Amino acid sequence: MEINKIEGGVIAAKGFRAAGIHCGLRKNKSKRDLALIVSDVRCAAAGVFTTNKVFAAPVGVSRAHLADGYARAIICNSGNANTCNADGYDKSNKTCAEAARLLGIEESDVVVASTGVIGVPLPVKPILDGIPQLISELGNDAESGENAAVAIMTTDTKKKEYAVNYEFDGKIITVGGICKGSGMIQPNMATMLSFVTTDADISPEMLKAALVRVVNRTFNMVSVDSDTSTNDTLIIMASAMAGNDKIESECGAYEAFCTALENLCRTLAKAIASDGEGASKLIECTISNAADEKNAKILAKSVINSPLVKTAMFGADANWGRILCALGYAGVEFDTSKVDVRFRSSAGSILVCQNGMGYPFDEETAKNILVKDYVYIDIDMKSGNESATAWGCDLSYEYVRINGGYRS
Amino acid sequence: MEINKIEGGVIAAKGFRAAGIHCGLRKNKSKRDLALIVSDVRCAAAGVFTTNKVFAAPVGVSRAHLADGYARAIICNSGNANTCNADGYDKSNKTCAEAARLLGIEESDVVVASTGVIGVPLPVKPILDGIPQLISELGNDAESGENAAVAIMTTDTKKKEYAVNYEFDGKIITVGGICKGSGMIQPNMATMLSFVTTDADISPEMLKAALVRVVNRTFNMVSVDSDTSTNDTLIIMASAMAGNDKIESECGAYEAFCTALENLCRTLAKAIASDGEGASKLIECTISNAADEKNAKILAKSVINSPLVKTAMFGADANWGRILCALGYAGVEFDTSKVDVRFRSSAGSILVCQNGMGYPFDEETAKNILVKDYVYIDIDMKSGNESATAWGCDLSYEYVRINGGYRS
Repeated sequence: MEINKIEGGVIAAKGFRAAGIHCGLRKNKSKRDLALIVSDVRCAAAGVFTTNKVFAAPVGVSRAHLADGYARAIICNSGNANTCNADGYDKSNKTCAEAARLLGIEESDVVVASTGVIGVPLPVKPILDGIPQLISELGNDAESGENAAVAIMTTDTKKKEYAVNYEFDGKIITVGGICKGSGMIQPNMATMLSFVTTDADISPEMLKAALVRVVNRTFNMVSVDSDTSTNDTLIIMASAMAGNDKIESECGAYEAFCTALENLCRTLAKAIASDGEGASKLIECTISNAADEKNAKILAKSVINSPLVKTAMFGADANWGRILCALGYAGVEFDTSKVDVRFRSSAGSILVCQNGMGYPFDEETAKNILVKDYVYIDIDMKSGNESATAWGCDLSYEYVRINGGYRS
Repeated sequence: MEINKIEGGVIAAKGFRAAGIHCGLRKNKSKRDLALIVSDVRCAAAGVFTTNKVFAAPVGVSRAHLADGYARAIICNSGNANTCNADGYDKSNKTCAEAARLLGIEESDVVVASTGVIGVPLPVKPILDGIPQLISELGNDAESGENAAVAIMTTDTKKKEYAVNYEFDGKIITVGGICKGSGMIQPNMATMLSFVTTDADISPEMLKAALVRVVNRTFNMVSVDSDTSTNDTLIIMASAMAGNDKIESECGAYEAFCTALENLCRTLAKAIASDGEGASKLIECTISNAADEKNAKILAKSVINSPLVKTAMFGADANWGRILCALGYAGVEFDTSKVDVRFRSSAGSILVCQNGMGYPFDEETAKNILVKDYVYIDIDMKSGNESATAWGCDLSYEYVRINGGYRS
């Protein structure tokens, strides 16, 4: 099956419009801070959310609104997480109610998300006052989708949007989305914030199944700083406007849809890792030939999360001993005497560890590989046929600077 | 029971001599890199070691040599971890054999430790050639003990030694020790490197029991960067020269010994946290009134390990939402709506979160508290009577600088 990258992000699929405006939560008037995504029809919808016990009010409200498997609009603000505030639920509910009233849809068909500082009361008035303008600017052109992508950004330096389509049984099906990441990123069952739209006709049950399956291989394999946020939210809405036979079981059409959704989510997840706070490079760690897939995932994430591996990557230092160390404390069984480690980038590939022991290598060659902005750490366990990939970034001075005074 | 801080570290207890020399593992000739601690008599001895599956050759050798519960000498080099090297065991064994031969003791009574870079073959000749000088410089004066403390340092900026004594049943019992820490610090069953000596008369079994009990409350509650090292080693030797009735069960004398040992280990562990790589301040997080001690420990360490909490502390930013977030993803049950958070230092104390929600506070006052070099994060769970304390440090530009090019 061919998957084609196409233009547009969250508005690429049929039936969706989006907008992003500055409503006033941010001091900087040129920074958009409120996004809206609306479908022309009621959509099958599913979401996955943070596993953090301390979770945002909008997470609680959106979980409830998605319980029936349907939604029609997503409203999201940046600049304030609406978390650990006594009146948080009240404000998230008011936001949904006002959007529903002005859109002429059910309040329970509106889902809500927030991102920004925790524990500061959310100024809800700018949001409520901004909804009419937000609705008036809704469009299905590339610029409208981009405005929504920009409005959900916090310390992200790049907007993150992507879209793909594929043909199945004579119908073209599109899947597109936007996301934001940057800091407090170790998604667990969801990511920071991502909104995906598709025109596939698919039942709420199969949509949720596809989402969980794909998220475990994509967003849940990304880590910027091992901090699982209170606001992680990933929502998908399916408008059914592609005209395909409705997907209601684990058929070939379901597999095709999962493949496209995984392609989309992997691209968005990698965009989060490479734009991690202060990141100068994207790191992709693949554990191959492992005995067990679950353990392979744990090992890959342990390497990606190690502050010592991350700082070595920042310094382009081939300190592979730290990789062995991070594997060793991951808490899973493996045969250390079989492990091979190789660094790889557009500049080439170099073996640095064989059978768990150092393999003589040329430091200059290793340096030239590691200075690139996309570095692969390939780890061969030689113990089975399972594999897993995790994505992360280096740990730089800039991460410390950004987070030493985030609130100021 | 009164515990008195006394002069001297690892040589404070009766029967111990120490030395530290430059043997040539380090390029800098003024940096000592080989330490030896010897007892006049054979000692009851116990050790705890890293739980990392990838562990150093000296860890394997020392585990074997301590299996009988007795030892008489500890030899330790810095500058090379002797980990992930094909000939690692051979070199650790040669080191023990040569020290034993020249000291005139059994090879199995010598334990060995190494610290430094992983995966680079250990140059063993400088060590073997240095042993005669090392033995000739053994002394029980403060300077000899200090030389040993300095010789085991890597990126540590301060030597770490401490000693206490107490009186029990008319006898003075002394416990002293040295340690090194700095980076790759999240001890799990042991710490980076620490060597403790005592003149208490205590059976190997009770010595091991005391060590495990104390370590779980002290060294295992320290984290600099959440990386559990391949070389963590804590060894204690008891010379029995204090003349006390031999401790062979969980009697009052055992409790007294544990109290003194815990005092010593807590002091050494805190010294590691406050001298963590790039650290500008020591952070002490106490979870009080928790329902469960094990969970309290997990929660305290989750706060201490959060990169976002650590960078906020570096910036003296009262971003308490990150503390709630770190509690929330720790993976244990608790009632988020009961949590109070308070910052405290020599400049005062301030409540910033009450019942899981933001509590209005003065930013200037909070800043004045957080700029100090010893900051307490006091978290009241209001759910029971258990408590736990963990120690860590902030995450600074300096940590990134040190670890971006550690090997160069």
